[in-house]
Amino acid sequence: MDKKISDKVINRLTLYHCILQDYINSGERFISSGQIASLLNIDDSQVRKDISILNNSGKSRIGYIVEELKTSIEKTLGFAKTKKAFIVGAGNLGMALAKYDNFTNYGLNIIALFDNDKNKIGSTINDKLVLDISKLPNLARENCVDIAILTVPGKFAQKTADYLVAADIKYIWNFTPTVLSVPKDVQVWNENLMGNFLQFTYNI
Amino acid sequence: MDKKISDKVINRLTLYHCILQDYINSGERFISSGQIASLLNIDDSQVRKDISILNNSGKSRIGYIVEELKTSIEKTLGFAKTKKAFIVGAGNLGMALAKYDNFTNYGLNIIALFDNDKNKIGSTINDKLVLDISKLPNLARENCVDIAILTVPGKFAQKTADYLVAADIKYIWNFTPTVLSVPKDVQVWNENLMGNFLQFTYNI
Repeated sequence: MDKKISDKVINRLTLYHCILQDYINSGERFISSGQIASLLNIDDSQVRKDISILNNSGKSRIGYIVEELKTSIEKTLGFAKTKKAFIVGAGNLGMALAKYDNFTNYGLNIIALFDNDKNKIGSTINDKLVLDISKLPNLARENCVDIAILTVPGKFAQKTADYLVAADIKYIWNFTPTVLSVPKDVQVWNENLMGNFLQFTYNI
Repeated sequence: MDKKISDKVINRLTLYHCILQDYINSGERFISSGQIASLLNIDDSQVRKDISILNNSGKSRIGYIVEELKTSIEKTLGFAKTKKAFIVGAGNLGMALAKYDNFTNYGLNIIALFDNDKNKIGSTINDKLVLDISKLPNLARENCVDIAILTVPGKFAQKTADYLVAADIKYIWNFTPTVLSVPKDVQVWNENLMGNFLQFTYNI
């Protein structure tokens, strides 16, 4: 029985997962819903409700068992189902994402970066090669990669997206400030940084 | 009469704003709700509903007037109310954000970056100085800066957050994968990249 989990719940479960990882690093074995709620400044009841959708919450008499709750979140959100992706644009943001080792824990496997700058092509970032963008279509097909993380400058975003679509990329995680025009069978997730910032600061 | 605008609406209005900017760059004067809806793969009626909360939607017989709609979004979301912020952590992500000129259009004024790496201190990124982190408390008070964009490595995140809190920083935009523990009067916005990715790829 596969229940559809809402975006907000996925988001919170990922944050619980970060907290659990910190607890494990500190050698803690148990955690209460109140401790999680307090760190995220949300209601205790919300945390308990979110955790209740997991198959095995690891609940014990003295709190949730950290390791079990963490594994359960990983299973529910499908961290084990590794997804391969390319980073397109080896500028600062592309490099930052390539260095973000946490991605691997969440099932995101970055295969390589692509750029058209000859000074960058051939270098490695966190053991990942920077390749000539012209190699992307073949490598995408050979390695069955259909996710691209788009980190080129905004003015090249649409042209690069067109190139990715022609290379059968089906999912674009868009970090550029450009809203992309793509065919219906391609999904775009806009990492709308300014929207996030405005939500955060709207009431300041 | 100040209506509270929901996070989702703020997020969509920011995306409409990006589209309008692109239209202006292409010399277009009019846009329809259907054109916006199609680019974002959402319902036309949703776009019209969002736009209806603006004071002046710029509606004309042949579509919305691009410039007017853009200005109206800026007024409603308070882009003119400039907010000053520091970037804390001058690694790739901090540098990428410092280079992101779009921030200024949205009323986010990045004053300086801070780091503890002697090789970085004194350099400039996009005309913004990288300063010694020990200078942050004084500069925050002198310049009335109470927003910090946290881009240090995850393992230094909590310690750095404690330092920011002691320097009277009240808003932390957290790009690290660590959930921060802060006093009740400090607000944290978690830029939960993996949560966003999992929402995007949950059904792949």
